[in-house]
Amino acid sequence: MENERIDDLQYKGLQLIQNPDYFCFGTDAVLLSGFVNLKSGDRVVDFGTGTGVIAILLAGQEKAREIIGLEIQKDIADMARRSVKLNGLEGRVRMIEGCIKQAKALVGPVNIVVCNPPYERPDTGKLNDNHSHMFSRHEALCSFEDIVKSADQILGTRGKFYVINRPERLAEMIYTLKSHRLEPKRIQFVYGAPGKDTKLVLIEALKEAKEGVKVLKPLYIYDEHHQYTKEVLKMYHME
Amino acid sequence: MENERIDDLQYKGLQLIQNPDYFCFGTDAVLLSGFVNLKSGDRVVDFGTGTGVIAILLAGQEKAREIIGLEIQKDIADMARRSVKLNGLEGRVRMIEGCIKQAKALVGPVNIVVCNPPYERPDTGKLNDNHSHMFSRHEALCSFEDIVKSADQILGTRGKFYVINRPERLAEMIYTLKSHRLEPKRIQFVYGAPGKDTKLVLIEALKEAKEGVKVLKPLYIYDEHHQYTKEVLKMYHME
Repeated sequence: MENERIDDLQYKGLQLIQNPDYFCFGTDAVLLSGFVNLKSGDRVVDFGTGTGVIAILLAGQEKAREIIGLEIQKDIADMARRSVKLNGLEGRVRMIEGCIKQAKALVGPVNIVVCNPPYERPDTGKLNDNHSHMFSRHEALCSFEDIVKSADQILGTRGKFYVINRPERLAEMIYTLKSHRLEPKRIQFVYGAPGKDTKLVLIEALKEAKEGVKVLKPLYIYDEHHQYTKEVLKMYHME
Repeated sequence: MENERIDDLQYKGLQLIQNPDYFCFGTDAVLLSGFVNLKSGDRVVDFGTGTGVIAILLAGQEKAREIIGLEIQKDIADMARRSVKLNGLEGRVRMIEGCIKQAKALVGPVNIVVCNPPYERPDTGKLNDNHSHMFSRHEALCSFEDIVKSADQILGTRGKFYVINRPERLAEMIYTLKSHRLEPKRIQFVYGAPGKDTKLVLIEALKEAKEGVKVLKPLYIYDEHHQYTKEVLKMYHME
């Protein structure tokens, strides 16, 4: 397709087909993949996988039995499917075209749900003229509550849900998760650098777990000398 | 009373009568007082005021019209009352003996509720033989939900609720606050020093506000050279 390019994921030689006309992956996908605790044999779904970056990065960890990317936009799901082939991951990664709300029928039971959802609520900000950008940045199709409801339907007891989002939405996310039997157990705040404002928050929730959350040490992307911190380099396996 | 001593609060010459047989105030009281945004004319209540340290520190800010300390233990309420007199604050600070659950009848409408609640849930840890210590550290008399329910009853629209607690209870607190129309608006995590684990969390919730929370920069008590940070020195007005 016009404007497509192949980008190096800088992790175990994995590559990703992207198109700048659509939404390109960012640090958040790498941070979320790095935050997920996979166990051998896990069946994983990435809700709204886009170009499949998180599904492919998780496949690189070589633990999950099957990773499914669920994507509603046909063109993008197709691009993701080609990235899976490009990496020779057809045996373990599968792309399904469809809506997150239909996950129960489309995906079935999983141990882990991962989601890098739109950061903007439908009622905030300017909607983008480019529809693909709009779907990626706004909750035009699916609210955070829809995502959590769907996750609850396909996760068994002690199944895990992972999300990254802006810290402004922390309270809303915690409330929604707890309302659907998903207990936040690990939370980490991400900062551009020490002394900067909180940029992102990572949450791990465990289905039907008891209350009590561990707030991890802050995660800094850059150190005070504008270099990647060793935590981030580790995620890229560059350390 | 035996074992009583008078401690300097290191803030505007304020003093506090304490008794090591009971619960003595710590950094958390100073942190919570420093986190509260008072406006001129505010009517404030400190739930479970103990020796009255938070009520007295807030009086030192000289904005509130009236500050009420609510304390269920007679001996301690009496000690707090004597601290109020010692500081000549009888005109603005009042100690009321009674249960937080009775706040509606005992205190009436306020703009601000402050609470440094017990950190331990009633079902965790060892109950202390000394009853006063037990009441201060365990939710033997009053759960976090009881506290929030009472706050909701006496706060008007846009009234503020402030709490400090262990970060382990973050999700539970956010859920309980939102369930009672108190929307978390500002959250700050407190660390002993950079690189250390999260120690405490401060929350400001606003009654009937819209969703969206600001997660502030981390608050460090000590810097890397084991000295108080300037944020903490500022709270003690030593800077």
